[in-house]
Amino acid sequence: MTETATVRRSRLTPEREAELYAAVLDLLREVGYDALTMDAVAARTRSSKATLYRQWGGKAELVAKAMRSNKPHTNIADVDTGSLRGDLHTLVSSTDDSAMEQNNALMRGLAMAVHSNPDLLKAFRELIIEPEMMEIRRVVQRAVDRGEVRQDNPAVEYVLHMFVGAFVARGMIDDQPPTQSFLRSYLDAVVLPALGVSTTP
Amino acid sequence: MTETATVRRSRLTPEREAELYAAVLDLLREVGYDALTMDAVAARTRSSKATLYRQWGGKAELVAKAMRSNKPHTNIADVDTGSLRGDLHTLVSSTDDSAMEQNNALMRGLAMAVHSNPDLLKAFRELIIEPEMMEIRRVVQRAVDRGEVRQDNPAVEYVLHMFVGAFVARGMIDDQPPTQSFLRSYLDAVVLPALGVSTTP
Repeated sequence: MTETATVRRSRLTPEREAELYAAVLDLLREVGYDALTMDAVAARTRSSKATLYRQWGGKAELVAKAMRSNKPHTNIADVDTGSLRGDLHTLVSSTDDSAMEQNNALMRGLAMAVHSNPDLLKAFRELIIEPEMMEIRRVVQRAVDRGEVRQDNPAVEYVLHMFVGAFVARGMIDDQPPTQSFLRSYLDAVVLPALGVSTTP
Repeated sequence: MTETATVRRSRLTPEREAELYAAVLDLLREVGYDALTMDAVAARTRSSKATLYRQWGGKAELVAKAMRSNKPHTNIADVDTGSLRGDLHTLVSSTDDSAMEQNNALMRGLAMAVHSNPDLLKAFRELIIEPEMMEIRRVVQRAVDRGEVRQDNPAVEYVLHMFVGAFVARGMIDDQPPTQSFLRSYLDAVVLPALGVSTTP
């Protein structure tokens, strides 16, 4: 057996990868980014640090990929309901309340870390922010193509800001976790009117 | 001299209080909430821990009051420019860009702490969030009274969410600090249209 074949055979199965990502997210919620060590991940998942470094390169990359794995696998931008309101409500409904609160806890735990760690910020932007931006751009572009939204509406550039803002502000202002029902209400009250779209179903 | 008089005489002057708050904010930016100790505040400000505890009760209260002291003293809700757009632009202009970036750094440093420390969350809500809410409610109520905004517009409940969101999301999405010019653009693109107000000056 060649060394190449051995290396290939040592790649993780999708199930094992999912198990590792889940353990990383659990640790992140428990101790936060700064206190999370590759040793702790290796111990929790009964794997070797060498495997972790070979597969992910480092802690920032592993954490970012684990966060990304937490997203539903359906590409929401493929779902065309025929209206911007329908598409955005589908987007909100794709994450259930308990997953939303878990995401919220992760965002809190990462808030300081992404600003003091350029590798993590880069991974966070490439793996979390940019795919979200692309999905929202596709959905909004379909609305422009349908004639629902004007291409030059200045709110088009701020759709993700509006969503991220509502998500983060919900806890700080209302001391409540973000939920689907809150985000649906915010969508109809703020996002769609800012885009000039009627919120009558 | 009675003991009461001595206690009264030991109260801090407004100048000394401002100096203490500034030192607390510097420490917060340097080390974050969890690593900030009353010992460090006492050493930095050459005061006794007994004085700090007598004046503020504890770390959460001291930190929240220091954050509150960081706000401009003018009550923005008193400035009536005659239009909601004018009033909200005045609000945005009341904090300059460097103060805004400093506030942003403080928010990042406190994000995890407010969720794991009920005293700090309570102080943060009473001293930071609720006064902001009250100012915004007064400004928006004036707009309702003028007939600029409908009382039952659902976006009325979300004005602070929209602002806080833009502020927080700016760094995460655009990797840029929030600035007056960004917030002015967001105000005209999102906040005013959501409230049904024309953004033509």
